[in-house]
Amino acid sequence: MSNQFEKTPLNQVKRYHTRGDYDRDTIYPIVDASLICHVGFVDHGRAIVIPTIHARQGDNILLHGSSKSRLMQLLAKGGEACITVTHLDGLVLARSVFNHSMNYRSAVLYGSGVLIEDPDEKMEALRIFTEKLIPGRWDDARQPTPIESKATKIVRIPIDLGSAKVRTGAPGDDEADYALDIWAGVLPMRTVFGEPEADPRLKAGVDVPNYLIDYAASLK
Amino acid sequence: MSNQFEKTPLNQVKRYHTRGDYDRDTIYPIVDASLICHVGFVDHGRAIVIPTIHARQGDNILLHGSSKSRLMQLLAKGGEACITVTHLDGLVLARSVFNHSMNYRSAVLYGSGVLIEDPDEKMEALRIFTEKLIPGRWDDARQPTPIESKATKIVRIPIDLGSAKVRTGAPGDDEADYALDIWAGVLPMRTVFGEPEADPRLKAGVDVPNYLIDYAASLK
Repeated sequence: MSNQFEKTPLNQVKRYHTRGDYDRDTIYPIVDASLICHVGFVDHGRAIVIPTIHARQGDNILLHGSSKSRLMQLLAKGGEACITVTHLDGLVLARSVFNHSMNYRSAVLYGSGVLIEDPDEKMEALRIFTEKLIPGRWDDARQPTPIESKATKIVRIPIDLGSAKVRTGAPGDDEADYALDIWAGVLPMRTVFGEPEADPRLKAGVDVPNYLIDYAASLK
Repeated sequence: MSNQFEKTPLNQVKRYHTRGDYDRDTIYPIVDASLICHVGFVDHGRAIVIPTIHARQGDNILLHGSSKSRLMQLLAKGGEACITVTHLDGLVLARSVFNHSMNYRSAVLYGSGVLIEDPDEKMEALRIFTEKLIPGRWDDARQPTPIESKATKIVRIPIDLGSAKVRTGAPGDDEADYALDIWAGVLPMRTVFGEPEADPRLKAGVDVPNYLIDYAASLK
């Protein structure tokens, strides 16, 4: 079975189409590597874009929020969403202003919401969110009560269409410009964690857990 | 004159409304501190969300792209956009799963595109983009030719409405949970630059410019 999404007018990468990729094996790692996504939806005829935490469960994106949130209410009724994830990996300094660029990995996904109502399925989704955000946290933290679970809406969005767009490497200048005395190259960018900062009200004698020390060290 | 955006159903922060802020003095620094934004627009009835470089010129957002890009064509015709900028500042580990959160600064702006056609205005916009991306670069790089300028569409989007949403500080747990033997606090996150990497085809004898060394050092 092909692991590629169908290419349609909706998800086709048009500009720099050679940077486009429709393979789940390319798209999903980009989605998973980001702690947040930007969700777009239509409300009263206008596009609204909201940053939110996401997780992936197979070919579904999980989103959660307050039962009262506009986005969650819309998705719970089957509303359509566009979910975009972007990583900036560097600034690309070409010799010409025109050829300046960025190195990036982005993924754009399309689908419609399905409300998760089964309490066990909901609890499993909360576990997936928590473990994606901070691996090891679910078993350590105080888990949700039925009342807390009820205050949270969770939707899954089966991914109907997706595409990735990736740029890597050195600048591409016009051939004549390579002779210019102008520095060219890449200024890399990345996201890092700092040192864990204890809550001022932390109970005496509670140490930073090992899973958090390891996680903080994973992005240095 | 008030520096606040009007609060309407479109831009009002509903969830955790105390985190909402409508002051340009709060919103604009959030917008300016990010190298990219996520732009939402409606195409054939669906919301599409695209990451792109932005710059601000007073009460306008500048966007640019290929003359052939779907987004730029739509905005050039006066299309509406939602422009969202998000910074992740940390993971907030509460004692309960339910109260986990993130520290973040986000801004959501609304407006409609106006095509910039005047060549001088266009060149000034390209200068603003370049200087925002890499301060000092405009005077060093080879500047756009008329043909390159023609291949680029630039729109300005007068900001009609805007809001910011910000969370800072320690977790907020249920009072009873503070007695639990669970570590709580914040894992800070930030974006950093690495060391400049020269283009393999860099002309011999061209050193990394001082403005780039300074810029790389500004996010360590």
